[in-house]
Amino acid sequence: MPRTHILPVSVYYEDTDFSGVVYYAKYLRYFEAARDEFFGMEELVRTYKETGIGFAVYKVEVTYREGARFGDRLEVRTTVNPESDYRILCDQQVWRVGGTQPLVKGLVHMVCLDANQKLVALPPWVLQHVQLRNA
Amino acid sequence: MPRTHILPVSVYYEDTDFSGVVYYAKYLRYFEAARDEFFGMEELVRTYKETGIGFAVYKVEVTYREGARFGDRLEVRTTVNPESDYRILCDQQVWRVGGTQPLVKGLVHMVCLDANQKLVALPPWVLQHVQLRNA
Amino acid sequence: MPRTHILPVSVYYEDTDFSGVVYYAKYLRYFEAARDEFFGMEELVRTYKETGIGFAVYKVEVTYREGARFGDRLEVRTTVNPESDYRILCDQQVWRVGGTQPLVKGLVHMVCLDANQKLVALPPWVLQHVQLRNA
Amino acid sequence: MPRTHILPVSVYYEDTDFSGVVYYAKYLRYFEAARDEFFGMEELVRTYKETGIGFAVYKVEVTYREGARFGDRLEVRTTVNPESDYRILCDQQVWRVGGTQPLVKGLVHMVCLDANQKLVALPPWVLQHVQLRNA
Repeated sequence: MPRTHILPVSVYYEDTDFSGVVYYAKYLRYFEAARDEFFGMEELVRTYKETGIGFAVYKVEVTYREGARFGDRLEVRTTVNPESDYRILCDQQVWRVGGTQPLVKGLVHMVCLDANQKLVALPPWVLQHVQLRNA
Repeated sequence: MPRTHILPVSVYYEDTDFSGVVYYAKYLRYFEAARDEFFGMEELVRTYKETGIGFAVYKVEVTYREGARFGDRLEVRTTVNPESDYRILCDQQVWRVGGTQPLVKGLVHMVCLDANQKLVALPPWVLQHVQLRNA
Repeated sequence: MPRTHILPVSVYYEDTDFSGVVYYAKYLRYFEAARDEFFGMEELVRTYKETGIGFAVYKVEVTYREGARFGDRLEVRTTVNPESDYRILCDQQVWRVGGTQPLVKGLVHMVCLDANQKLVALPPWVLQHVQLRNA
Repeated sequence: MPRTHILPVSVYYEDTDFSGVVYYAKYLRYFEAARDEFFGMEELVRTYKETGIGFAVYKVEVTYREGARFGDRLEVRTTVNPESDYRILCDQQVWRVGGTQPLVKGLVHMVCLDANQKLVALPPWVLQHVQLRNA
């Protein structure tokens, strides 16, 4: 059973648009930051430098329930599940701290690509990392 | 049958990330720009100022096939279909100019919210505008 | 003598561009986040809602010495000095944690504008807040 | 005498923040797009791929007079002047189309860096390109 990783984020001016709430694409940025922290940026950098392999999103579905506002303290709740040797599914939600339901829910389907943008199997450390986190 | 609106966009430094391709959330920005141009920004501004009503995305699904790169000349192809008195579905694709298949495909489900972020029916001009464009 | 406020920030994919380092405009985002935290977002929101008054940047000078990279742990070091009843100067630097010199240095000149974008005197709480922080 | 390059840009939702005007860092994005178009993206890409050399900003000064708003049609007016074999100065202004004075004025000081982020002389084609444009 996957465990939930939590990344706190704050909403600043830049995250909002003139409608007063966070711009819809910014949640994908929050999701990405949370995934980077889940996997560990040093390991992601090391893998990329040594092998040219990096993560790529091939599909994302996002449902928006309520807009976050300037000054909100949010948390991104992430669970990660391998789907195959090639694919990982990240369930990611943005909650207001202390909130009773998610503001935004996302499903992010990921693969790994090599330096030529060709699909490759997930590196072993990725699967081990997920298993360890979910254990 | 809906007609396709085309917005040309160019890929600049800021749109890319260190993996060399356009950052996955930027396509949502391209989608938004195309929708703004489809509906007409003056009309969107007028509606917002007079009634407090604006569009909001409640669901988005994006599939990534190939990454655009710095210097690419792209076009966003948008078709818009009303789904009900409250909902509009935008089918949006990003193509490289002269390309043979889309790089990125999106389905963007939209509603209208009033100044209190409450769901309201689509303004009549929106439906008329879509009908005119699709006629 | 002004005291230094420190905000930790991390560099994620989105902050970089294809040249491999953080995009030059992103440092202004880091600066803004640091200023928001320095002044306190609740107070900024309260002021804006009650009076329509908010901060605006009227001049910024940024010097770039070295580019931050994906995965870097940075800190934004901010000192704030009132220049007059109308103007505040923020000295803001981005350091790599444990670094020996700043990567980027900024001077951000700010004023307050009312809801009609007209210049107004800095609210008393702003000056008090700065005096307290610098005491 | 330098000639002015003009890039039209439009203000979309994403460019604004909840204060209603364009976010202060976005003008640096407009400036960058205008410089990319001034120099030509194909040539920039070719130089980067063949030699690893690219432009970097080492200093930027921006003065903000008036905020652009959602729906505004803007133009970025750019003039470029070599300052030495190593440095180029871009004078960049953002105007509302048909406006009587610039909304935002920028001075962007640029150099070229090689793949190791070391300072190198401006490539000959850069100086020739500027001379041709300014002739």
